[in-house]
Amino acid sequence: MATLTYLTTTHFDFGAIQKLPAELGRAGISKPLIATDKGVRSAGLVEAVTGALGGDMAISIFDETPGNPTEAAVLKAFDQYASDGCDGVVAIGGGSSMDLGKAVALLAGSGGPLDQYDPLAGGAKRVQSVAPLIAVPTTSGTGSEVSVGFVIIMEDGRKLTFASPHFVPKAAICDPELTLGLPAMMTAATGMDAITHCIEAFLTPTINPPADGVALDGLWRGWRHLPSAVKDGGDRDARCQMMMCSTEGAMSFIKGLGAVHAMSHAAGRIARLNLHHGTLNAVFLPAVLRFNAPNCEEKYERIRQAIGLTPGADIAAAITAMNADIGLPSGLQEMGVEEDDIPEMIAYAMKDLSALTNPRTASENDFEAMIRESF
Amino acid sequence: MATLTYLTTTHFDFGAIQKLPAELGRAGISKPLIATDKGVRSAGLVEAVTGALGGDMAISIFDETPGNPTEAAVLKAFDQYASDGCDGVVAIGGGSSMDLGKAVALLAGSGGPLDQYDPLAGGAKRVQSVAPLIAVPTTSGTGSEVSVGFVIIMEDGRKLTFASPHFVPKAAICDPELTLGLPAMMTAATGMDAITHCIEAFLTPTINPPADGVALDGLWRGWRHLPSAVKDGGDRDARCQMMMCSTEGAMSFIKGLGAVHAMSHAAGRIARLNLHHGTLNAVFLPAVLRFNAPNCEEKYERIRQAIGLTPGADIAAAITAMNADIGLPSGLQEMGVEEDDIPEMIAYAMKDLSALTNPRTASENDFEAMIRESF
Repeated sequence: MATLTYLTTTHFDFGAIQKLPAELGRAGISKPLIATDKGVRSAGLVEAVTGALGGDMAISIFDETPGNPTEAAVLKAFDQYASDGCDGVVAIGGGSSMDLGKAVALLAGSGGPLDQYDPLAGGAKRVQSVAPLIAVPTTSGTGSEVSVGFVIIMEDGRKLTFASPHFVPKAAICDPELTLGLPAMMTAATGMDAITHCIEAFLTPTINPPADGVALDGLWRGWRHLPSAVKDGGDRDARCQMMMCSTEGAMSFIKGLGAVHAMSHAAGRIARLNLHHGTLNAVFLPAVLRFNAPNCEEKYERIRQAIGLTPGADIAAAITAMNADIGLPSGLQEMGVEEDDIPEMIAYAMKDLSALTNPRTASENDFEAMIRESF
Repeated sequence: MATLTYLTTTHFDFGAIQKLPAELGRAGISKPLIATDKGVRSAGLVEAVTGALGGDMAISIFDETPGNPTEAAVLKAFDQYASDGCDGVVAIGGGSSMDLGKAVALLAGSGGPLDQYDPLAGGAKRVQSVAPLIAVPTTSGTGSEVSVGFVIIMEDGRKLTFASPHFVPKAAICDPELTLGLPAMMTAATGMDAITHCIEAFLTPTINPPADGVALDGLWRGWRHLPSAVKDGGDRDARCQMMMCSTEGAMSFIKGLGAVHAMSHAAGRIARLNLHHGTLNAVFLPAVLRFNAPNCEEKYERIRQAIGLTPGADIAAAITAMNADIGLPSGLQEMGVEEDDIPEMIAYAMKDLSALTNPRTASENDFEAMIRESF
């Protein structure tokens, strides 16, 4: 049975950040922990957001979110949340800051340790409540501002995906103004993250036609505007369209994701590399599209329509061409992944939550073939 | 600014009616008023639904909903609701029963008279609360089970559209099993209602890309399956797809509707005819598509993709051909509308809520031309 629910209130436009005080009031937050990272802070974006609060509100800023958030960073932020007497979280940044913020809100509402909430071990049921969280994205990729999930690298090395309707932020404030300064390479990598969300969510076998429609609209939008956003970061329309693509990608992945994400999570936890999640998605996507093809013909026709290809055209080749056009790496080798990394990547991909909703079941051999194809 | 919110919990599948007891519990309803009509009741659908309650629950059945629900019927149903001590509504039927049920829930929660809630007179703000309502559609057209609106013919002859997020049912239970017995002509008329919702909602200038995606998915689905559902009412896949098209149409018209609905509401209130809303939509749609064309070229390309037309093809002609294929009237004349009805139809269409969100502003002359084109 399909049970459809559509997520949270999302304010979306240039200047949307002005909605923050009202949303804090609605969420009952009087002293937020600002979860962010040093890059976002040095770009002046924390000030841009807190400026909307008018200076009267007590806040506590945690800016030590790592590129791929870790359990250790979550615990440090939660200590600060507790000792500063915070009663909610405002996450400002990309997926890392928002995911860390969600983990802090979970610990504040339901207590630790974090790994008891692993959904693959039945942990979603243990979530009693979460502290209120408002998400303010500064990249267009993750869509964590409207999503049911977050990803944390645990102390024992696992990269765990947590998922529950409780983790959807109380409100999302999507202000494309905050993305105008994002460098070209980050625009490209996060943009392909959003596009991959749209494609993988659409392809999952989960029955949720409204989410399919949202995914295809996001794909249509993102595909047309990503090259412009990369080439001219000040292109306001392109920035706005990419932010919407990102939000739609995450709205749609309420359906689940697929083998691309399984492998990106597996590669993203290689500690010596600290690879960017969106870049990994871009690099794995062509191989997964070729692997899934036998099970997806009708859906591939709709993807071709969305990205302006002729019937029967090679979608994987179009992705490869897009990656090259926007300056992303051509493969894993260029990113520093080595032959020796493959066995562990396969093992992790097989166990990843996203692997369960790939439209074609991938064996160890299949994952190995897709990883090698992506080298 | 676009503020996106996505509606209610929708259970969707053959057998979904089994979710009713749990949803009544969740909504806190212990004695529902069943809002329905005699046709639905004689088709055995009320029993099919109440059978899922297991016989223990006290219920009160109001089955006098007229084809286009009137304020008088609403008041009669509300009297029954109050005198029987009901604490919520279960609406079973097409748009008429669901809309009547919504009006009863509004009176129960916020008091009468009904016309104080006219949104064109600022009435949405006066809605304080509504009694809990669970909607169980038995047609695939209106989508009222997930929509923010309902339409009532008032004592003074106005056909008023009420709209507020409060009017979204607490839950929608979409069980295609309940539509298997719908006659071919009603399947055709309600199906074109759903398709019109998808098209008009998509075309409104309101910024809500996720709703655009939902609309296009509904259109894609409905266009492919409506002829099969009309020709073989027992085609379970076609019935399921049409019910989803209907739900998606209403999810998307959170964006508003357009000139088709403005004219259908105007014609639907001609008392001597009591015309079917979906049939009217089908008949008006081609003329409106021709009228809107100068403002909608990019969107028309996406509509052409969704319904399988080649680039630049005539969408209005495709609608006319679909209407003929599924046995709908070719125009207003065949339905009994007369020359003398035109002036009042124009006057009402100009004032209708839906006219405000048409992608091209229609003058009196424009409405007259579209009505004559639809004769």
